Amino acid sequence: MTAPATPRRRGRRPAGEDTRGAILAAALQEFAAKGYNGTTLRGIARAAGVDARLVHHYFEGKDDVFVQAVGFPVLPRQIAARLAGPGPDGIGERLVRTFFGVWESPGGRERAVALLSTVAGNPELTPILRDFISREILAPVAAMLGGDDPELRATLAASQMIGVLIVRAVVGVEPLASADVEDLVPLLAPTLERYLSGE
Amino acid sequence: MTAPATPRRRGRRPAGEDTRGAILAAALQEFAAKGYNGTTLRGIARAAGVDARLVHHYFEGKDDVFVQAVGFPVLPRQIAARLAGPGPDGIGERLVRTFFGVWESPGGRERAVALLSTVAGNPELTPILRDFISREILAPVAAMLGGDDPELRATLAASQMIGVLIVRAVVGVEPLASADVEDLVPLLAPTLERYLSGE
Repeated sequence: MTAPATPRRRGRRPAGEDTRGAILAAALQEFAAKGYNGTTLRGIARAAGVDARLVHHYFEGKDDVFVQAVGFPVLPRQIAARLAGPGPDGIGERLVRTFFGVWESPGGRERAVALLSTVAGNPELTPILRDFISREILAPVAAMLGGDDPELRATLAASQMIGVLIVRAVVGVEPLASADVEDLVPLLAPTLERYLSGE
Repeated sequence: MTAPATPRRRGRRPAGEDTRGAILAAALQEFAAKGYNGTTLRGIARAAGVDARLVHHYFEGKDDVFVQAVGFPVLPRQIAARLAGPGPDGIGERLVRTFFGVWESPGGRERAVALLSTVAGNPELTPILRDFISREILAPVAAMLGGDDPELRATLAASQMIGVLIVRAVVGVEPLASADVEDLVPLLAPTLERYLSGE
């Protein structure tokens, strides 16, 4: 099995998973050495020994390489787009529903446990994860908000949902662990609405 | 260095840390084998090969053995006592201030990181931690609350503060990581007040 020479036209079954895996392994080393902000797709390609076009073939961008390397279940830019929705009203409920849509999908809890283990077991990932969260999740969300301290309020909203994920899906504390999403939405949505609206 | 024969009267410098450490090591095995609820101080003493009085000498109870074994920074029954405070008014702000009082003390962030690493690196601790949190933290707090679903609301309040701890102290996401506690209290207290008051 060899890597395809031209990524988008392939005459035979490609060594897709091998090449993709090699790119992800090289990417983790690049992120660890240069941080999230200092890593480029070109640098990842060089470290993996593949043509940069191959990286673009398998991944939508640096954020996509990162989320796939650490097992994050969704591209954050898709979250920001859904939150923006039809306008500012109801952003709290949209955040709760979007969040549960991601983590309550099949395998979501297992992914949450695996992600936490990866981060806790690899302390060198912490600053990279921090920069990724700041740049790819919080900055675009804060940019939609009005009021004072939008970055702080966006971070508090994230902290509430991360806490729910840890308590519900990772540690599994009842009655939160098996509460119905429809019972959680009216409890959580006003919290997020208040943080995000700044009122 | 030998363990003291009578715990509270000691003629010479005791092997305190050794004995205490042996009890903690035995306790972790007991908790792992029998769960939090199934473990007794007598069983811990037996597993450690010491007299049960010695366990009572070093620790205030099973909850104290557990918090010291996993590096939890405070005895939860002290938290519940402080939350009850002068009455139901202001319970949200008291929870925020009590929580920050514990985790913002010297070494608090390091303890948070160490605790998360211990839990993530030892999946067999997860059900034990879950039972500990339910029994020693959430049950006594829920017992003070009125309204519907007090256990669920207590768990949501815990999830908000655990999320803050992870984002602020473990991952260190700005601007939450270096925000002043006095700026966080007015943002977080209404969230907790609403969960805990059920209004």
